[in-house]
Amino acid sequence: MAGAETSFHTHPYVPRDLFLPDFVPCFLSQSTILAVYGVASLLVVSLIWSLSGRFKISKTDRLLMCWWAFTGLTHIVVEGYFVFSPEFFKEKTPHYLAEVWKEYSKGDSRYAGRDSAVIAVEGITAVLEGPASLLAVFAIATQSSYSHILQFAISLGQLYGTAVYYVTSYLDGDDFAASPFFYYTYFIGANFSWIVIPSLIAIRCWKKISAAVPVQVQVQKKSKIR
Amino acid sequence: MAGAETSFHTHPYVPRDLFLPDFVPCFLSQSTILAVYGVASLLVVSLIWSLSGRFKISKTDRLLMCWWAFTGLTHIVVEGYFVFSPEFFKEKTPHYLAEVWKEYSKGDSRYAGRDSAVIAVEGITAVLEGPASLLAVFAIATQSSYSHILQFAISLGQLYGTAVYYVTSYLDGDDFAASPFFYYTYFIGANFSWIVIPSLIAIRCWKKISAAVPVQVQVQKKSKIR
Repeated sequence: MAGAETSFHTHPYVPRDLFLPDFVPCFLSQSTILAVYGVASLLVVSLIWSLSGRFKISKTDRLLMCWWAFTGLTHIVVEGYFVFSPEFFKEKTPHYLAEVWKEYSKGDSRYAGRDSAVIAVEGITAVLEGPASLLAVFAIATQSSYSHILQFAISLGQLYGTAVYYVTSYLDGDDFAASPFFYYTYFIGANFSWIVIPSLIAIRCWKKISAAVPVQVQVQKKSKIR
Repeated sequence: MAGAETSFHTHPYVPRDLFLPDFVPCFLSQSTILAVYGVASLLVVSLIWSLSGRFKISKTDRLLMCWWAFTGLTHIVVEGYFVFSPEFFKEKTPHYLAEVWKEYSKGDSRYAGRDSAVIAVEGITAVLEGPASLLAVFAIATQSSYSHILQFAISLGQLYGTAVYYVTSYLDGDDFAASPFFYYTYFIGANFSWIVIPSLIAIRCWKKISAAVPVQVQVQKKSKIR
């Protein structure tokens, strides 16, 4: 009997005719979901901030280590779960990560509806940018020579992904939010940090790299003269 | 009378039920379309190769100038036309750029069908990466300090776009080619250069930039000692 039954629940998403057989509503409240994400993120950031004090690096670099740890774990754990869980909206128990995406889909129903552009962007983010972000934490701590170019590459990937995410939504009618509240808080608000912070990091890395290259040319010329 | 009529032509694309009202078949043959693109590209490459001889740069840099001019003009002219011409398949005269996309749609009907992921990727490519590629031609010629980071950024954008392009096709069933011939020549073959060449350029720039950064650190330390 179990598993063979097919029941239809109404869902809270827009468009209303989105077909989501066996949909199970959220168990956790919005504030619980946000609180868990907030506390978990705060723990990660505190841990990395405290550990980073052992390295002889600037405060900016310590903050960057915190960002890359936070964004890397978000990409791998939260977004990674979404990519590989096509049936998260059928979850019958209060599985935290399923709850996150059931809730976020109120701001963008393409998540529950498994829009291919959303899955492609989230897939690249979770599988490539997530592990690369954790590598950036390590690269900054050890002051690796590839630290800036790596941070630049990931930031550019995040910006490209966000661009595809918004442009496809616009082209498909921009009507995937359950209400203006969810549109502005989830669809716009929750992604806002991933526009501002990668832009700032990309500009910083561009400047650092552009400043480094002519110095190398100069050094090479000097050694030739000798 | 004219403009008010709606006629239905059968089209050569897959899926067969793709709805393309007022479709007008290709006027030019496949070989004509390819020959025009080939000759135009050869002219651009020859011109840039010849002009680049005036600058004191390596042969690799001269070849890179040719690549950026070719890919930049392809992005702006060919892909730019597609992005801003939603009704190219209705073109009643042998407009060359409309013919290109009528023909290419045999390898990927999402172009004629205006799939939003395809338009998003092509839009970013035409509007941002196209002009940036022409800037790269200039940056290499003048040996600008941002030359490598710019080439790295565009190459990464091209690779990200190609990844979204293939992943969305796979997720949507990978059934948009009129035949295996068009699948392998157009869908795979025509995009192949934009996987191989950006990968090679991105690796080259990564190495050059990683090599430049520690030199700067060293120089700074030396001047501090003084």
